[in-house]
Amino acid sequence: MSHHIPTWAETAPRLVAVAAGRDAADLVVRNVHLVNVQSREVLEGWQVAVADGRFAYVGPDASHCIGGATEVIDGAGRYLIPGLCDGHMHIESGMLTPAEFAAAVIPHGTTTMFTDPHEIANVLGLNGVRMMHDEALMQPVNIFTQMPSCAPSAPGLETTGYEITAEDVAQAMSWPGIVGLGEMMNFPGVINGDPQMLAEMAATMNAGKTVGGHYASPDKGIPFHAYAAGGAADDHEGTAESDAIARVRQGMRSMMRLGSAWYDVESQITAVTERGLDPRNFILCTDDCMAGTLVNDGHMNRVVRHAIACGCDPVIALQMATINTATHFGLERELGSIAPGRRADMILTSDLVTLPIEHVIARGRTVAIDRKITVDCPHYDWPRAARQTVHLGKVLGAADFAIPAPQGANAVTAKVIGVVENQAPTKSLKFELPVTEGRVQATGEVCQIALVERHRGTGGVTNGFVSGFGYTGDMAIASTVAHDSHHMIVVGTDADCMAKAANRLGEVGGGITVWKDGVEIALVELPIAGLMSDRPAAMVAAAADAMVAAMADCGCTLNNAYMQHSLLALVVIPELRISDLGLVDVTKFELTPLFEGQP
Amino acid sequence: MSHHIPTWAETAPRLVAVAAGRDAADLVVRNVHLVNVQSREVLEGWQVAVADGRFAYVGPDASHCIGGATEVIDGAGRYLIPGLCDGHMHIESGMLTPAEFAAAVIPHGTTTMFTDPHEIANVLGLNGVRMMHDEALMQPVNIFTQMPSCAPSAPGLETTGYEITAEDVAQAMSWPGIVGLGEMMNFPGVINGDPQMLAEMAATMNAGKTVGGHYASPDKGIPFHAYAAGGAADDHEGTAESDAIARVRQGMRSMMRLGSAWYDVESQITAVTERGLDPRNFILCTDDCMAGTLVNDGHMNRVVRHAIACGCDPVIALQMATINTATHFGLERELGSIAPGRRADMILTSDLVTLPIEHVIARGRTVAIDRKITVDCPHYDWPRAARQTVHLGKVLGAADFAIPAPQGANAVTAKVIGVVENQAPTKSLKFELPVTEGRVQATGEVCQIALVERHRGTGGVTNGFVSGFGYTGDMAIASTVAHDSHHMIVVGTDADCMAKAANRLGEVGGGITVWKDGVEIALVELPIAGLMSDRPAAMVAAAADAMVAAMADCGCTLNNAYMQHSLLALVVIPELRISDLGLVDVTKFELTPLFEGQP
Repeated sequence: MSHHIPTWAETAPRLVAVAAGRDAADLVVRNVHLVNVQSREVLEGWQVAVADGRFAYVGPDASHCIGGATEVIDGAGRYLIPGLCDGHMHIESGMLTPAEFAAAVIPHGTTTMFTDPHEIANVLGLNGVRMMHDEALMQPVNIFTQMPSCAPSAPGLETTGYEITAEDVAQAMSWPGIVGLGEMMNFPGVINGDPQMLAEMAATMNAGKTVGGHYASPDKGIPFHAYAAGGAADDHEGTAESDAIARVRQGMRSMMRLGSAWYDVESQITAVTERGLDPRNFILCTDDCMAGTLVNDGHMNRVVRHAIACGCDPVIALQMATINTATHFGLERELGSIAPGRRADMILTSDLVTLPIEHVIARGRTVAIDRKITVDCPHYDWPRAARQTVHLGKVLGAADFAIPAPQGANAVTAKVIGVVENQAPTKSLKFELPVTEGRVQATGEVCQIALVERHRGTGGVTNGFVSGFGYTGDMAIASTVAHDSHHMIVVGTDADCMAKAANRLGEVGGGITVWKDGVEIALVELPIAGLMSDRPAAMVAAAADAMVAAMADCGCTLNNAYMQHSLLALVVIPELRISDLGLVDVTKFELTPLFEGQP
Repeated sequence: MSHHIPTWAETAPRLVAVAAGRDAADLVVRNVHLVNVQSREVLEGWQVAVADGRFAYVGPDASHCIGGATEVIDGAGRYLIPGLCDGHMHIESGMLTPAEFAAAVIPHGTTTMFTDPHEIANVLGLNGVRMMHDEALMQPVNIFTQMPSCAPSAPGLETTGYEITAEDVAQAMSWPGIVGLGEMMNFPGVINGDPQMLAEMAATMNAGKTVGGHYASPDKGIPFHAYAAGGAADDHEGTAESDAIARVRQGMRSMMRLGSAWYDVESQITAVTERGLDPRNFILCTDDCMAGTLVNDGHMNRVVRHAIACGCDPVIALQMATINTATHFGLERELGSIAPGRRADMILTSDLVTLPIEHVIARGRTVAIDRKITVDCPHYDWPRAARQTVHLGKVLGAADFAIPAPQGANAVTAKVIGVVENQAPTKSLKFELPVTEGRVQATGEVCQIALVERHRGTGGVTNGFVSGFGYTGDMAIASTVAHDSHHMIVVGTDADCMAKAANRLGEVGGGITVWKDGVEIALVELPIAGLMSDRPAAMVAAAADAMVAAMADCGCTLNNAYMQHSLLALVVIPELRISDLGLVDVTKFELTPLFEGQP
């Protein structure tokens, strides 16, 4: 590992020697107001000394720790705060590898992330998780991995590239960077006592690690209590103050998220700011951030700043992104505060409310100054198997996207996935559609959607209908980001464009492509697992912006339309979705025929 | 084990089934105001359901958890609080075995103790620790063991029965009841980088467990910071508000103690109540409680009540004796709150300020009602080796307590241990003493002290002088409780009485005996390791009361005189002490001659 940090136990003799003045520190930072998240104080004029990447001395005067080779940073009277922790997140959501994600967020002051590589688990299984885990451990900041718990998300309703078993979970618990189990999304399974889900949680608890929760239901009655009894230690699916309170009362930590499309801090933080609950069990996180958010708006600094803007005391808001998070994962003596023995992760900022991130130090080393990264984030040598995951099995043609009508029909009543702007749930709609030469025609606001199998090269294409994007003319958009099983979703008005778009992603190894009038007008290449780019965030964000512009060019009028596109196969959120097995009625969790009146 | 409790992981299927209403709970408690130490709220009318010793449901209505075999307790509108935790303590201080200590404190609502069997470690080494550990695990409440770190306390200045090595510590870390390292008292060693002390702490940290601290110095300068850098996670030696604040600022937890003779809560809790520090890093403990305190005054209920009387909010005071403690030891998902999955340890009390302990439930089972224990606390089968630890090597006679004068002297200037009322430190005094027939005579306020070797049967007796007790007439008092090496301390005015007292403890296997005019007038039998009785606390307290009365009968006027007696060999606290190796100048940490002018 290029950024190995010795354990506290290993380096304790030196830490003691430095604190005692017998050895010189590697780094001293002085002339700062230190934000102490342990005592909840701002300590004026405190100083810190660092050795071997850990704090050796934190106190009023570190002069005795300074030797000839000691780097001394003058904080110029600014605040020194702990490096920020993201309590739950998916790196893949940024369409970036762990290295490039780290490079994007380090200048924003993020020095620790708790990541759940759930997406790659669906594509590459345990091996994919291991690759993410290994690249994570190569970084100059702390990236811990939560072992994904639910692949497939909806067993029986979709086919993933790989499945995660309880044995996989037990095996992963011995890896050095695994900190717990990723969000247990199968909450109906837990509530109903599903043996595999309980076995995964048991393997995690037996390893002394943290079970991540995901209870995505507003029902806080009996099912919620049954879920809590199963062992989930946190939950980030709350959206209302009452959700946050309910979780903390059950001894779970309430993770409040501000992601690119999640806005759940303002509605929940009142549990602390107005209801006066003990803040210790509240944690800030992002869950999902697109590259553009990272490039333009920030990461955990954005979340903390927002929490403060919502009325939270700045030091308490910082606790929610530092020590609370560390404590939750059993790491409070390892990171999350500026205290002896902990990893020397810290930020200089001149204002505790607007929180400008001016100088970031991770493990005692300057990693960013004035939003510019000053350190290398090494890339894992992703193997061929991870770079070639789009297996179509054949060259697709327009015929693969033709939808035959029932024998002899002149028109049909088709079930149509109705996209709703700015909402994850879809509507299950019905449209009368004409039939020409035995094929159903998508007309008006309805266009076609196809789920193209891409894991096993079966050549399978599941066709259906979708409305709400507003596409016009001859166009298609295809994406291998297709939660959660990550086949390929193709939406279009023209079968030939749809085939071309799908084949194009087969060529480039995955990503998103937009076609208009038979020509490609935008491409986001995501060669790693069809999910991530190993190019810098700014480039990925620019390509994504161009892709969104291309969608608009095709007539799309929807806000966040690409996100809606990528969620159309998410067969755990109502009402109507598509999978490689067919159209799925997610109100009943069962497959359903495409046309009314069919068996 | 008679009181086995399945892990949360093992019992999760049943907990979920009970919470979901598919299975009946073992116990439901309803009609209570639930003190939620996670959210810091009192929740009116909440109910709890218990299965397999753990909380299955905690919420507004547990009706669906009740079946035909469910025990239902009506709380009668009282408060339901979590069982109390003692964050640091020595069972031996009560002169009781773990079983009898548990029996004494369960009616006071203590359901979890973090115990450091430091005393027995000095007498019986790792084997003795294992016996304490094993009896601890047999109890119906939670008794975790901290592996003693410092035996001997003062290497080179005393000889213990056994020594604890870093290898012992590493081995103990794999035992089921070991939760961490006992207080690292050798703080000068840590500060100076003593390899054994650092190795013990490293073994503990490598096992992911908690290093207990003990920094018994008012100096909060560089040495204190060096100690913190070594890895101690807590400290209970603070006595002033500034001590508590200093520890928390270093990322250590401040343990505030109220023991039989420690009064460190009132002076420190102002760090929270007045300075407004985050309460999460403050923990209440007892450290040392005599049997009489347990019988007459209480245990952790006494401490919490006192904290509230000092102005602490009752729910915050309860947090300091429940969830804060559990979190500190990495057990927050195992105990310390009334929340799903945790051990069902709880107390019914009708008042949150005076805190009467009316009904105690541990692991879902009623263990005490109205200060009467309702459960058995099983005794370990203490082996012969643990019951016969007083090895004198010979029958002692008056001659063994004769103190020869330097050749030809008619009088001497002797160094005398000066006992100071209500203070642990002694004074190093000098007295002119007469010589008769070549032997120094203790006269006036000076009497004799002897350290009788009792671990290896060497027959060794180290003689010296002590003042301050006020003894008159012919008397002697002997004790095998003789911190920390626990040889035998005999104090007396008459050599014959001293010999008889010493021999008597040899006969009964240890304890405390008081002799007057050649007759025994009090005896506390402590047959286990010479430190503990396996009889009930009330009997031991009565015997101890009689012993104190006997001391007074011998002329003693000192408050807490027995405690002073038992500390006279504690060669880590200034100024003058005695050990099996001789008189010890604890200001210099070196042996010193008995008479002025000797080499």
